[in-house]
This record gives sequence, structure tokens and C-alpha cells, in this order.
Amino acid sequence: MDISELKTNHPDHWKKAAALRILAADAVHAAASGHQGMPIGMADVATVLFEKHLKFDAANPDWPDRDRFILSAGHGSMLLYGLLHLTGYEDMTMDEIRNFRQWGAKTAGHPEYGHAKGIETTTGPLGQGVANAVGMAMAEQSMAARFNKSVVDHYTYVIAGDGCLMEGISHEAIGLAGKQKLGKLIVLWDDNNISIDGKIELSDITDQKKRFKAAGWSVFECDGHNPDEIDAALTAAKKTNTPSMIACKTTIAVGVEGVQDTSAGHGYAIKGDQLEQMRKFYDWPYPAFEIPEDVKSAWEAIGSRGNEEFAAWNERLTEMSDNRQAEFDRVISGTPHKRLSAVIKQLKRKVSEEQPKKATRASSQMALEVINPIMKETIGGSADLTGSNNTLTDGLDWFEPGNRKGRHVAYGIREHGMAAAMNGMALHGGVRPYGGTFMCFTDYARPAMRLAALMGVPTVFVMTHDSIGLGEDGPTHQPVEHLAISRATPNTWVFRPADTVETAEAWELAMSSESTPSVLSLTRQGVRTVRTKHTNKNMTAQGAYVLAEAEGKRQAILLATGSEVEIALDAREKLQAVGIGTRVVSMPCWELFEAQDEAYRRKVLPAGPVRVGIEAAARFGWDKWLTGERGKANKADFVGMESFGASAPAEELYANFGITADALAEKVKNLL
Amino acid sequence: MDISELKTNHPDHWKKAAALRILAADAVHAAASGHQGMPIGMADVATVLFEKHLKFDAANPDWPDRDRFILSAGHGSMLLYGLLHLTGYEDMTMDEIRNFRQWGAKTAGHPEYGHAKGIETTTGPLGQGVANAVGMAMAEQSMAARFNKSVVDHYTYVIAGDGCLMEGISHEAIGLAGKQKLGKLIVLWDDNNISIDGKIELSDITDQKKRFKAAGWSVFECDGHNPDEIDAALTAAKKTNTPSMIACKTTIAVGVEGVQDTSAGHGYAIKGDQLEQMRKFYDWPYPAFEIPEDVKSAWEAIGSRGNEEFAAWNERLTEMSDNRQAEFDRVISGTPHKRLSAVIKQLKRKVSEEQPKKATRASSQMALEVINPIMKETIGGSADLTGSNNTLTDGLDWFEPGNRKGRHVAYGIREHGMAAAMNGMALHGGVRPYGGTFMCFTDYARPAMRLAALMGVPTVFVMTHDSIGLGEDGPTHQPVEHLAISRATPNTWVFRPADTVETAEAWELAMSSESTPSVLSLTRQGVRTVRTKHTNKNMTAQGAYVLAEAEGKRQAILLATGSEVEIALDAREKLQAVGIGTRVVSMPCWELFEAQDEAYRRKVLPAGPVRVGIEAAARFGWDKWLTGERGKANKADFVGMESFGASAPAEELYANFGITADALAEKVKNLL
Repeated sequence: MDISELKTNHPDHWKKAAALRILAADAVHAAASGHQGMPIGMADVATVLFEKHLKFDAANPDWPDRDRFILSAGHGSMLLYGLLHLTGYEDMTMDEIRNFRQWGAKTAGHPEYGHAKGIETTTGPLGQGVANAVGMAMAEQSMAARFNKSVVDHYTYVIAGDGCLMEGISHEAIGLAGKQKLGKLIVLWDDNNISIDGKIELSDITDQKKRFKAAGWSVFECDGHNPDEIDAALTAAKKTNTPSMIACKTTIAVGVEGVQDTSAGHGYAIKGDQLEQMRKFYDWPYPAFEIPEDVKSAWEAIGSRGNEEFAAWNERLTEMSDNRQAEFDRVISGTPHKRLSAVIKQLKRKVSEEQPKKATRASSQMALEVINPIMKETIGGSADLTGSNNTLTDGLDWFEPGNRKGRHVAYGIREHGMAAAMNGMALHGGVRPYGGTFMCFTDYARPAMRLAALMGVPTVFVMTHDSIGLGEDGPTHQPVEHLAISRATPNTWVFRPADTVETAEAWELAMSSESTPSVLSLTRQGVRTVRTKHTNKNMTAQGAYVLAEAEGKRQAILLATGSEVEIALDAREKLQAVGIGTRVVSMPCWELFEAQDEAYRRKVLPAGPVRVGIEAAARFGWDKWLTGERGKANKADFVGMESFGASAPAEELYANFGITADALAEKVKNLL
Repeated sequence: MDISELKTNHPDHWKKAAALRILAADAVHAAASGHQGMPIGMADVATVLFEKHLKFDAANPDWPDRDRFILSAGHGSMLLYGLLHLTGYEDMTMDEIRNFRQWGAKTAGHPEYGHAKGIETTTGPLGQGVANAVGMAMAEQSMAARFNKSVVDHYTYVIAGDGCLMEGISHEAIGLAGKQKLGKLIVLWDDNNISIDGKIELSDITDQKKRFKAAGWSVFECDGHNPDEIDAALTAAKKTNTPSMIACKTTIAVGVEGVQDTSAGHGYAIKGDQLEQMRKFYDWPYPAFEIPEDVKSAWEAIGSRGNEEFAAWNERLTEMSDNRQAEFDRVISGTPHKRLSAVIKQLKRKVSEEQPKKATRASSQMALEVINPIMKETIGGSADLTGSNNTLTDGLDWFEPGNRKGRHVAYGIREHGMAAAMNGMALHGGVRPYGGTFMCFTDYARPAMRLAALMGVPTVFVMTHDSIGLGEDGPTHQPVEHLAISRATPNTWVFRPADTVETAEAWELAMSSESTPSVLSLTRQGVRTVRTKHTNKNMTAQGAYVLAEAEGKRQAILLATGSEVEIALDAREKLQAVGIGTRVVSMPCWELFEAQDEAYRRKVLPAGPVRVGIEAAARFGWDKWLTGERGKANKADFVGMESFGASAPAEELYANFGITADALAEKVKNLL
């Protein structure tokens, strides 16, 4: 319909939607930066969704059973901020809106998780929100199966733009959702036919409706400016047993002369006269950042619409047994199980005694075998490498449309979708996701791994086959720079455990993390147990520690991680044999070592002895540890990879790339 | 059809295909590692393709107008090696096959570009081959428009598996190909319904045929074991004006009892008795790695089938004018235009005089404005950020189905697909691709960026908005760790130019590169011209150089890149003002500096003075330069980012994150 008809046909709706539109235009204008085109175009859809469908209570934004609303097209952040402000979310004040995109404001350029309640995930990198939503819808189904639909029974709604749907991650997310028959996932596509470079047909001619159908979705359509059609489409979508996509035909920056229906309308564009014209068109005589009382109270009524439902839900929650309720509260709060530490200690003690030679990916499975039975909130999975990643433990079963109690997801060959869906699960709460692929495919999962770090969610990335030690698959599958990639990323714990003991310790930390994702870098090949003396203390929690002390005068320190720790121990034998006192420091987690106080760090890495690092990876980043604190120098060197790997059996690769105890000992001797 | 019917119905085909199958099984068995399931399953399709359709000449593997054959499902590498050996590619000897997956062999676990002729691209990371092929098909169209169909007129064939089609990159590639109506691109889908974790329906229920149709492709089907159907489908696919997908219904590891049609058949599985049973089934009484003469000569006839066509093509080539032929040879060989250096020098001289304040992304456009008119092999593009990435210069025009002379691609919101398509273009030869996105979306493009480095192709990644300096879009769009990510990757030139002069120099190097991809890290915000004195010499080629010398005793060296070089110069002023002699070193390309001899590096960074680095990015990797060569220490410090960024105007971000001349000068004073 011509949007101006709304004024007479749907006067109440018109005003509410106008409030969203004008707020977006004013905030972007004030910041002289941002994107008003999408909020203006999708204001009608958002208004109907919030008014008639979304289950929420602005006064209780943490309500675990609220519907989730994800703005995947995150550049349209003002739509979300407007909705949160108007419906009465306490921390989204008008001052925050006024300070859109300014230092310290909750109203960042793109929605940032943690800035304000109601921002369910960080979006902006396109397509991520769609995939997060898939994870949220899976978490909902898992929780419902575990705790009953009386306390977990909600929808997940997404607004996605053309950009989201062009990104590859959308394919992975849509495919996963279709397979999983996530009937309570509803994607609203802002079908405005505009991207930054021009009309969509400049770069894409995909029939999105057919595409979603091909992936097992139900597809609906509506005029995205017609409240009745929007309502009808949402009502229909909620009734399906498959995920639903609603194609909302809209006009970008509708109602703003000169920019509507053009790519110019996407970003900051509405100034001076245009802003006046827009105010006239929308009958909005009010100054910037002022909402008339009738409109504000209409929106606030929407914000409190869910109040009774929230109370009823609380009632139902208290009807559960005390134990069940305590468990529900525990998993929602993300608290690890109180027996976690005990079962890990038990495993460590056993392994320190038995001293198996084992790939750390298999060690990882041993840790999961003791964690999964007590922490029933874990949901494992793999990107089609279940047997290789060792992520499936006894009794987990596949998570399937017919078995929502299953706790292992067949993510398919979708590393990126898996990582983003796991973020969605972690954001949803009540579940703790981990998922595996080959470490080299960090590359595929990377955009979501960064967002886990940025959002501060404790997603666990199980990255096996972590070096040339994987052997014959060759350089396409052999990580060289991937430890550096994750270590360079803020707020990420990168664990590279040396044996089963360190692997168990890493898992304990990963499962206890509140706001930091973990990357577990695990071998394909067997490694010796190096922690042969049991300690109750989690040594990995310190990031690095003295594994073997120098005998006699300490002349050298060998720094090593993962599969190279046993090589360092062998080199130490060789050096001690010729009278060179050599300490071996195991460094399973640089970030946690960095977080120790300086006194501890200097105790582990004192100035003076020569230092040689060893890791079957690029040296990049290592100089920090080789150099010494405060720029005090040590003579130092490194044994590692200076190029990509090659295809051959693992032992030959280690020998040919010179990652050996002999080479390491030689470097020490050369420095002394 | 039941495959055993082939024996009587198509006895010649049966034998040829059996040779491929047995070779794959024997090689994988000998290596005790690898994947025979796909080669065995797709042998019939590959045999028909090579026998009846693929335009190639094994004796002239570099023929620029050969059809390209891409094994996107790269784990099935033995299919490709077998084809190359049997058809008589000189460097694919039986010894190479015997040494499958061994150190030094050309027969790596996954096909590695450069190991042997006929390996058109490196595959293994799934989906990449499909996207490379899209780039190759685009390069073909561009070359044909430029040089005429008489010398450029070939098909691009791809074998893709379920994994390729589940990966997100396939969505981007398929969408781009559909939009571009690449009628000479034909994807053969190995529709075997098996992935590593089990049946495909465990993770995916997508109707692939409908999916491709939705993206504008023509779709055909065949029984992948019926040579007549395969031939008919290929014949039909070649006639369309859109890209074609042929769904080839196959059985994985067909004919091998116990593993056929199961995920067990995918990887190394056929041993002892099973190998005997397979030999019996395929009437193959010959020992491992022996091909009977009749089969070998039948295959060799296929390998030389294109000989006459090659000769005729050569004839047509010589019919072109000498100039045209020289230009054709130049662009095929990847030689930069002889005037490249001159136009860059001219630009540098002008800029050094005029000294504009300019964003380096705009400087990049200035460089392209002088390069593109002379190097007509360039094909630019952007992932829907053309105006922001400044990649479109005067007269390029959009590359479109109706305008193949256009030289700027609207890649759409497909960073990954863009990067992989560019790799395909570079591999095809005759064109030199560059493409832009925001630097933060290195994350999305990353798997293809790594492959560019691994393959050694000179793709140019134009990464603008390279720090918190982009301002209000906030942390989702602000790179912090992305310089480290690319720098940690072997064989990658990461340029972070300080001004227009360095940007022009970086472009000269990127356009002259033969086997190294370039990442151009460019600012959104304006920066001063710091190279105010013209030099003909390309200073960036040395990686780092003294930009401003200390006056008086040299007490400090400031190391900086990109937008922080001007801050370092300001800090130097402050330090000199209080009598602290301070050198400023600009470091636009670490990798090229690393490649200089030690004497030069020590001249630029002599031991002694304190060193402080500055870069609006993570410190990760910087300690190498702060420390000094051979572990000789300098007192050192760093000014940069210790966390993710934030949303605010750029100047405020620099101030709030402490990336200022004052902070830098203070660090120096603290160290002295």
C-alpha cells in the first residue's frame, strides 16, 4: 500500500511507527553518521511484531523465556534502540539515543551485546544475527526438552537484510535451521531491493523465497508497510513446524523525498530540508528527541504487555521441585557444576599415574566423558568431523527434530554457521556449547570466533589437528598461523595443552569461563604424558609454569606448548647430559600467563638464561616471551615453522622442518 | 544403472574408469591415508568429461585457452592425479602416484597448485574450488571480450561434493555466477548422499537442484555411473546461457563391498581382502601401479585429443597483430606494464609537491587512476562498498553479462566469494584482480586469503577502514588483530602505507608481484603527506626506512605504520624540542623489511636507542621489531590497542585509547 494511506487507515499504528522513524532520522542526523534507511523502511514491521507478537516485558528484560528479537541487519541499530526506548527498557534512556554513536553511550553504531538490556547479540558483520538466532532456537528446543515447555517455550525473531542473505553464513544457518525444523524461528526479510552499490540486481538475482523453500523453510510474504498483512504473515508463520521466512516488501527510507528507494537512503543522508519534509510527511511537528505523551504511553503499554505472562511464568517456575529449580537457575546463570573441579582432579590423578601416550584430541574426549554426565547443559557438536574431533561422548545422542534431548549436533560442513550458532546458544543461556572442526578451519569460523570474544560469551571451539603433526592431508589442512590469529584476538583463551592432564585443566577452565571464549588447540598425533606427578592445583590456570627445573646452574629456559613440550623435555635431557642446566616451561595459555602478576611471570621466566621457544607454528607473537619483561634482553631463539607445511607422514614433517630435540638443543648451544 | 552393467554395455569406458578407480584405491592403500571414496564414485563422470568434452592437450598444459577442470572436492585428489597420469601429463609419473602423500611428491594429500601441471588450483578447504571456478569463468569472459573469442573461448568444469555445497562460500559463488550468467561454467555435483558423519540427511535436507535454480542456474541430472546420461547432461549444459549444475547421482566407493554407499568408504578403508574383491569386481588382475597397455593407450589418446585444436589455436594467435600478441603474452605471463614504474613516479612527484591531506583509501584510488588506464588486465571490484573502498576508477564500468568489457565487479555482500573468485582470476591468468572490503572483514575473506598465499598468486586485497580511525561504526567494524592475522601468514605482503606516496609505492609492488598476494591496509580518515621530498626510489620496497632522522644524539627510534606515522612525526617534534634526538622509521611492509639483508635492517634499526612502536592495532607481533636483532635488547615500549575498539568519532577514539603524540613522547621519556 502507499504508506501515506496508513495515516487514515491505521492512525495509531502510523504514529507509533512514525516515532521509530523520526527517532532514527534524528539520531543519525545528530551523529552525522549511521543508517536511517532500514529503520525507516522496517518501522511498520517492527511495530507490528512488538505490538502483537513478541513476548517480552520491558521491566524484566532477563526473563529467560522471553521471545528473542535479533536485528541481524545491525547497521539499522536505531530501530532497536528506538524500540527499547519507546517500550520502556530502563537503561535505554533518551539521553542514550541523543548520544547515538558517541563515546561511552550504550547506543553504539551497531548493537553491542552487553551495552543495554534487550540487545540480544552483537550484530553488524552481516549474516551473523541469522546464525545466532538459529543457535538460540536450538537452545530453546533443548531447554524445553530438558525442563519442560511450561518454563521454556518461546519464539526467536530475526530482521535480516539483503546483505545478511547474500553472505555465505546465511546459507549455512538456513540449511542448519531447515534440517533441524526449527518451527519457532521466524526471519523477517527486509526486501527493499537496495544495497550500498545500487539495486540488488547489480549483484544478485537470487529468488530468495525459492531458496528458503529449497532449504525446508516455510515462506510467507507481506507488504512490509501494511500492518494487517504483516500481522497475518506473523500469525501464519508461528503455526508452522518448520522455520519461517517472511518476505517483507518495503521501501528503504520510505517517505523521505530524494532518497527513498535508493542506495542513498541507506546511510546518513537526511539533513535540513529533508528532515523537515520527512516530519511533515509523518505529521510529526515535535522537536528532535521528543515523543508526545500519547505515543509514548501507547508504546509503554506494549512494553508492559508481557507483565502478566511473566508473572505466570514465574509461578510455573516455582512449581518445579527445588532441585529442578536450582538446576534451572544454575544453568541460566552459567555457573559450572559444583562437582566439575572434583571430576577433573580425579581424571588428572588417574592419568598422571597411568601416563598414556595419547592424542590431545582423545584426551579432550576423556575430559568430556567426565564433564558431560554432570554438566547436562553442554551441547556438543562437530562440523562433520565427529570422529576426528572426538566431541561425541557416551550417551549424548544426536540433537534432532525427533530427539531434542540429544546433546550432539551434526552441524554439517558448516564451520562458520556452527560457530555463530554456538554463540547464539551461549547468548540464549541455559546451555553451554562446544563444537569441533580442524584447527585450520579457524579461517572459516573466524568471523563468529571474533564476535564471541567481542561479546564476551564462553563458547568453546574444539580445534583438532593443530599442526603439521596431522601429516598427510598437507598444507591446506595444517595450521601455521592459526595460534597467532586467535592469540592476537582480545578476550580469547587459546589453550594448547601438552597432554591429557593439561587438556583436562583447559576444559575445566573453559567450562568455568563466564565471559571469555576458549580455543582448544589439540593434536591429531599421540603425545606422552608430561605431567607425571599429580597436582590438585590447576596449573594451566596460571597460563605457564615450570614443568621441569634445571639441574645445576640454570643456563637455559625452553618454552614450549602442546605437542612440542615432549620435544623440549627431550632436548633438556640432551642438554643436561652435557652439563647445561635447562628449565622447561610449559605454556598452555599465554593469555592466562599474561594475567598473572609480574612477580609470578618473572619467577617462571627469570632474566639471564638463554631462552628458546618451540612450537610447530609461526614465530609470530613469540618474541614477547623470548625477550623478557620490560625489554630486558635475553639471548633468544625459536624453533618452529617458517613456511606453510607439506604433505607427508607427521614424523617426517617434524624432521624435515627441523622441529626436533636435536635442533632445539643445538640452538641453545649456539646461544651459550 | 547397476554399475556392473557397464562391463558389457560400455566395455571400453569400463576399463578406463576402472584404471582410475584402482589407481585411487592402490595409492590410498599404499599411503595408508587419503580418500578413495570419491575417485571411485566419480570415475565414470570424470572419464566421460575427459574423453568427450574437456578441451585440453596433455602435451601443452599451459595452453591459455584450455578448458579448466577444478576438483573442488580436493580430498579426492587421486582422481585428478590419476587423470593427469593416464592422459600423459609429463610430470605426473607413476612414481609420483606411488609416492602419494609422501615427502617431496607432487601428489600431496590435496591438490596443490604449482606441484604439477594440470592442477589448476589448490583445493581441500571445501567450497573454494567452486568459487575459484567462478573467477576463472569471469576471467575467460573478460579476456574473450578483450582479445576476441578466436583466442579465448573455453569452459570451466568443477567437480563439487556435498561438503562444497554446504559451505557458505558456495552460496556466494553460486549467487555471483548466477547473476553474471556464466554460461560456460559447469558444476558436476557428486550427489552421493554421504558425508563423514553419515547420511547427508543427518545434517542437511536442502534440495540442491531447487537451490541452484533459485540462483539463476540451469540444472541437469544424470546417473553418475551411466556414460550416456553423463554425456547427454554435459552436452546440454554446454548449450545454456546460464551456469549449469549437473546433479550426478553416484555411489561412494561403488563396487567395494562393505564400504560402498557408507561414510566408511570416504577415507582410507580398502585393505587386503577388500582390495582383492574390488580388483575382481572391476576385472583388474594387474598388480598395483600397473596399467595394461590397451588402457594406457586409450587414455593417452584422450590426452592428445586436443593436439590439433591447440595447433589451430596457435595459428589464430599468430594472426593477431604483433602488438596485440605481445599484449596477450604480457598479460598471460603476468608481467606488469613497462610504464607502470613511470606513472607511479609521476604520481609520487606530484603528491610530494602538493602534499594533500587525504585518506589512504583515496590515495589508493589515485594510484589506480594511473594504473588502470595502462594495465588493462586489471579487474577491480568491491563487496558492495565501492564508494567506501575507492576501487572504481574512471572508465572501468561494471562487469556485467551485457558488458564483458567492464572492469569493475559488483561482487555483492560476499567478501569470501570475492576473495576466492579473485584467486580464480589470478590462477586463470591474463587478468590481475583486486577487490575491496572493510579490513575487519578480512575475517570473512580469510580462507581464500590464506589460499592465495599458499598457492602464490598475486591477488590484491584492498582493505579500507583499517583501524579505530573509522570511528562511529564501532568495534564490529574496527580491525585490531587483522594486521597480525595477515602478517602471521606466510607469503603475504601486508602494506600499511602512511600517505599517498607510500600508497602509490605499495600499488606498484602489488601490481608487479608474481607469486605473493598483497593486503593493502588503508585508512578511512585523512592523513598528512609525510613523504614531502620526492624520491624516484620505491622506499616501500625496502619494507621500512628512515623517514626522519634524529637531530643531535640519537636517543630514540619511533617505529610506525600507516596513519600513525604522522603521530610519530608529531611526537618526534615534541621530543626534539626537549633535546631528545629522535628518529622516525616508517614500516609500510614488515615482510619486505624482513627480506632485506641484515646490514640494512641494522642501519634502519641500530642497537642502542630506545624503541617505541606505534600502531592503532594489537601489539601482537611487534616485539620482534622492538627487541632488536639476535636478541640484543633495547629498552622498548608500544602504543596501540589493548582491547577491541568502540563507537565514537575517530579523534575521540584516538584520544581515549591513548594513541597520541603525547603518549608516545611520554613512553620515550619514561624509558630514557
